[in-house]
Amino acid sequence: MNSQNIPKSCVLGNHVVIEEGVTIGENVKIGHHTVLLSGTKLGDNVVIGSHTVLGCQPYKNERVKHEVAQQASLTIGKGSKVGNGVVLYSGTKLGENVLVGDLASIRENTIIGDLTVIGRNSKVECRTTIGSRCMVQTGAYITADMIIENDVFIGPEVSTSNDKYMSRKPTILKGPYIKKGASIGNNATLLPEISLGEYCIVGAGAVVTKDVPDYATVVGVPAKVISIDQTVIDKGEGEEE
Amino acid sequence: MNSQNIPKSCVLGNHVVIEEGVTIGENVKIGHHTVLLSGTKLGDNVVIGSHTVLGCQPYKNERVKHEVAQQASLTIGKGSKVGNGVVLYSGTKLGENVLVGDLASIRENTIIGDLTVIGRNSKVECRTTIGSRCMVQTGAYITADMIIENDVFIGPEVSTSNDKYMSRKPTILKGPYIKKGASIGNNATLLPEISLGEYCIVGAGAVVTKDVPDYATVVGVPAKVISIDQTVIDKGEGEEE
Amino acid sequence: MNSQNIPKSCVLGNHVVIEEGVTIGENVKIGHHTVLLSGTKLGDNVVIGSHTVLGCQPYKNERVKHEVAQQASLTIGKGSKVGNGVVLYSGTKLGENVLVGDLASIRENTIIGDLTVIGRNSKVECRTTIGSRCMVQTGAYITADMIIENDVFIGPEVSTSNDKYMSRKPTILKGPYIKKGASIGNNATLLPEISLGEYCIVGAGAVVTKDVPDYATVVGVPAKVISIDQTVIDKGEGEEE
Repeated sequence: MNSQNIPKSCVLGNHVVIEEGVTIGENVKIGHHTVLLSGTKLGDNVVIGSHTVLGCQPYKNERVKHEVAQQASLTIGKGSKVGNGVVLYSGTKLGENVLVGDLASIRENTIIGDLTVIGRNSKVECRTTIGSRCMVQTGAYITADMIIENDVFIGPEVSTSNDKYMSRKPTILKGPYIKKGASIGNNATLLPEISLGEYCIVGAGAVVTKDVPDYATVVGVPAKVISIDQTVIDKGEGEEE
Repeated sequence: MNSQNIPKSCVLGNHVVIEEGVTIGENVKIGHHTVLLSGTKLGDNVVIGSHTVLGCQPYKNERVKHEVAQQASLTIGKGSKVGNGVVLYSGTKLGENVLVGDLASIRENTIIGDLTVIGRNSKVECRTTIGSRCMVQTGAYITADMIIENDVFIGPEVSTSNDKYMSRKPTILKGPYIKKGASIGNNATLLPEISLGEYCIVGAGAVVTKDVPDYATVVGVPAKVISIDQTVIDKGEGEEE
Repeated sequence: MNSQNIPKSCVLGNHVVIEEGVTIGENVKIGHHTVLLSGTKLGDNVVIGSHTVLGCQPYKNERVKHEVAQQASLTIGKGSKVGNGVVLYSGTKLGENVLVGDLASIRENTIIGDLTVIGRNSKVECRTTIGSRCMVQTGAYITADMIIENDVFIGPEVSTSNDKYMSRKPTILKGPYIKKGASIGNNATLLPEISLGEYCIVGAGAVVTKDVPDYATVVGVPAKVISIDQTVIDKGEGEEE
């Protein structure tokens, strides 16, 4: 551990590993055994749990070929809190006051907006953008190449996908596009390339195979529209998108 | 690490971190790199794997406001075994001979009964009570504010929820109530506030949207009763509820 | 840590724990805090992330009685890469150029073929065999006593099971049998003992309750055949099964 660049206001646990080229703000707290790999940048007042790994480089083999984010930094905005046993990749940017639960992972080249919660055991894949004030609940799976706008609620164990051919032939990977204020019930299944409209509601356990209109509620397998109601509560306060 | 309160009968791995205010029984085994935070109490013959974090305090931000269990202890009853990479919170009590699989997490103010198995990668949220001799299989999601009685079987990847408005408006969070001897098939989805009757069976992949009677079998989306049979095997031997 | 048997070509992170009886090949890289338990064998050019635990012995209690693989080795074939926070058990063999994602776990007495990808947060239970060039996507659950042939695609969050009585009575545990080239959509649910035919396709969110013919496409709850098409792309190049 090189200690020359760690502000005195920081509290570090035991056996923390800090590689060269790490930047740490004021009043940062880091739990025991946590690893900060080269290029990690923590804003002021960031809190990190124990056994977390920050700033990983992506792996690849003959079957998984990522753009490698070598040398890009992981940036965690001020006031954000990251749990225990979390894995965050390089090339990714967490906004301010983000909360990342235990055992979650976020891959490279991803953007997470301010005040968003990434729940425990959830997984966010590469090149995905998640807006501000979103709630990604425990165990949810957010695939690569996906866009989630502001104020979206993703229920526990929701599943998404981005490859309509399931590796059978080459294709451009494209996950769902989820518009602002949408709410997705627990364990719902979203197919690739679909669009979920503003403030729509997807029922728990639904399998969504095609686009959902704004303000619609869809349920079932395959999901069907049961109502469209523009009077649903608008949660947005001062969105800046 | 303070070693003054660790019985000589205990076996500790390398780089174990034991904070002040931890109580450890006789014949306890702890793997490498495991972290025991302040207030953790381990009964006799407890076994803990490597890279596990015991006694965490809950995080909060502007969007997630928990009652904070500051200073409450995590208690693990005698003979219980906890795997690798597990995260257990303060204010929680595990009974005797409980088994917690790798990479599972259990939040604060939760009670787990004797002989219950909490499977690998499963997640148990705060303020939930799980009875004795239950089986929570791999990857299952047990939400907050939920009650599971004795002898319940929760299949792999079962999903539950406790917020019928999905954050759209304030509500009292209330998860499902699962009565004794119920069996829930893999990847079933349970909606908030429903009650599952004694010894009922929920088929794999079912989406349960309303109460299930005692002894009923339900399947499908939404789940419907296909039989009610009181002759199902009663697994209870000497239940003390 | 005993350093006498570690080749000079290897790069070890900080606080790595290597127990007695570990074998390490040339050019191996191991991240920070990773634990190699007794009996672990790493081939040449293996890469392991941080906070990973290799070579665990299975736990048991009165309700979970495994054959214990005491003293059997964990073998990782040359060129394989294992992520961060992974848990791999003894008695298991990974082939060459296998990729195991972060926070995944693989239980004892399991075989993983060459070039197969075991995705992040996925879980592979004991006594299961997975062929070569398979893709097990993020968060998938592969139960015990299951066979997956070569070139199979298991989508994200797919769930399987092996106990048709859900612990209500004794039975022989038997998971699904998935034949070569099958593709399973995200969050699909597979019941115990079923057989999935060669190059079949299971739609996202389907609940598969009975055997699927070769080349068939099935969707829905319960899953029904919507087409059988032998002209689907044959991905096999030089399969040696």
